[in-house]
Amino acid sequence: MTATNKLLAGVELGGTKCVCILGTGPDDVRAVERLPTGEREETMRQIEAVLDRWRAQHGAPRALGIASFGPVDMRVGSPTYGYITSTTKAGWRNTDIAQRLGRRFGAPVGFDTDVNGAALAEGRWGAASNLDDFAYVTVGTGIGVGLIVRGKSIFGMNHTELGHIRVARKPGDSFPGICPFHGDCIEGLASGPAIEARAGRPASQLPPEHPAWEFVAHGIAQLLHTMVLTTAPSRIFLGGGVLSAQTHLFGRIQQELKRSLNRYVEAPELEQGIEQFIVPPGLGTMAGPLGALALAADAEAARAIASPLPTAASR
Amino acid sequence: MTATNKLLAGVELGGTKCVCILGTGPDDVRAVERLPTGEREETMRQIEAVLDRWRAQHGAPRALGIASFGPVDMRVGSPTYGYITSTTKAGWRNTDIAQRLGRRFGAPVGFDTDVNGAALAEGRWGAASNLDDFAYVTVGTGIGVGLIVRGKSIFGMNHTELGHIRVARKPGDSFPGICPFHGDCIEGLASGPAIEARAGRPASQLPPEHPAWEFVAHGIAQLLHTMVLTTAPSRIFLGGGVLSAQTHLFGRIQQELKRSLNRYVEAPELEQGIEQFIVPPGLGTMAGPLGALALAADAEAARAIASPLPTAASR
Repeated sequence: MTATNKLLAGVELGGTKCVCILGTGPDDVRAVERLPTGEREETMRQIEAVLDRWRAQHGAPRALGIASFGPVDMRVGSPTYGYITSTTKAGWRNTDIAQRLGRRFGAPVGFDTDVNGAALAEGRWGAASNLDDFAYVTVGTGIGVGLIVRGKSIFGMNHTELGHIRVARKPGDSFPGICPFHGDCIEGLASGPAIEARAGRPASQLPPEHPAWEFVAHGIAQLLHTMVLTTAPSRIFLGGGVLSAQTHLFGRIQQELKRSLNRYVEAPELEQGIEQFIVPPGLGTMAGPLGALALAADAEAARAIASPLPTAASR
Repeated sequence: MTATNKLLAGVELGGTKCVCILGTGPDDVRAVERLPTGEREETMRQIEAVLDRWRAQHGAPRALGIASFGPVDMRVGSPTYGYITSTTKAGWRNTDIAQRLGRRFGAPVGFDTDVNGAALAEGRWGAASNLDDFAYVTVGTGIGVGLIVRGKSIFGMNHTELGHIRVARKPGDSFPGICPFHGDCIEGLASGPAIEARAGRPASQLPPEHPAWEFVAHGIAQLLHTMVLTTAPSRIFLGGGVLSAQTHLFGRIQQELKRSLNRYVEAPELEQGIEQFIVPPGLGTMAGPLGALALAADAEAARAIASPLPTAASR
């Protein structure tokens, strides 16, 4: 452990895999390790083993960032702050993540949802670096949305859970949906497992002409319609396993969104061309892990503000 | 005109009526005048006549606040800043409001949507004075939502237009909706004119047992479901002509919302009882006009910050 170590450590805790990352940003990634997200105690121990090894090799990280699937408790001061709470993922309900890792590594811990982390990374290093209001949508195991308003992620009485809104259905789509809470919310209609349930085989095996994609594009466009009329992000990034593999969805979603909004919103961002408004993430598949590093950097900065060292200017 | 005049003037410009207000807050309202919202030039001249008369009687107001129906242009620096833009209200498209009144009265002008204004008034003087994240929904001529995040109204590439989201339809509801842009968006399904189109007579003449109310309550509950999962306000105020007259709707909306969320969100605000979460505005029907005063106060404060007078402390 060296006091001058500048490295940050991050963990993107996703529904199917975890990515541990060590570095300071996209141009300085020292190590990345991927693990499957399995049984919770085993998964947590594997994450700890990676971080232990990095600590032995590189010194203690200055801060730790955790970008987790949700729902999570983000209320500072709550006894279960930093926990995964009422998740649909079997065996992961009420799991301490941030407090446990913070105690083990004795470092400040930044904690947010995986999608808010990815959005913050796009804002810091990626395709949103000139924007204050934008959003990041991921379609994979679930559907998650990171919402940035005035440069920060939103937290009211809860974090954003836009993947669980109920949307207007496309006429002819009678699929009941698979969300155990809501049935046909957008996650229940258009996530990877929902597509597989619709089509009888995994999304990755469906050709672009499969009829399921029309319903998926319609549902995701409805999610975006709602977002445009709620916080009105200046750009929306679409990422995650399904969208990064099925690039044909972008054009369909863009056209469905245009049709649905029907020119109600007059904003240069829409009029310049929907192709510049609905875009893939600039950091690609690294948006998630880099989100964890962005959260670590924020935690480190917050500690620096809380107890500043004297500087030449202030002395 | 006196330099020591502390009075603020406000205009709530609504879809059916305008309310002009003079004062400094709910305990100091000096004058209120209501006008029908008619043809735009005539309406603007009537507003100007009221403000002219007040100026002659009480001196020039220190600042002016305008809380307007929308959509409006809130981009500071835009040539059409302070305009009503693509409204569905006949004859009011592209109407200069804030620049015109600002020039006439030579005072700083605060400008926001009517519902954001009402929400800000609830935060300053009403039932949200201990909250940073809350929302105000009005159901009347249209459906509008004021969204406050970290103490301020939201503006991304546009202001919030949640009244135009498309919601999941209640089974059995085949009403096509009346929104000229979207048909069955929530405004097209559950606003006052939509209720009249459903039932063949005005909302005010329908008894609580009329079947239209079930569909209206379901639609509004879907709007709230989306809001809970987007910015997650800590409390939601329901106001406007329809809701203030039809108090039976509150219980129905609360129960529909609970059923729809299905315990997915675990937050004390919901668990303490939905009756404390979905509530009437604390300022009642004065929330709108007081919103205009709140905007005037903010404009005055912003000018004070931009060019501070020397104070004892700073000299």
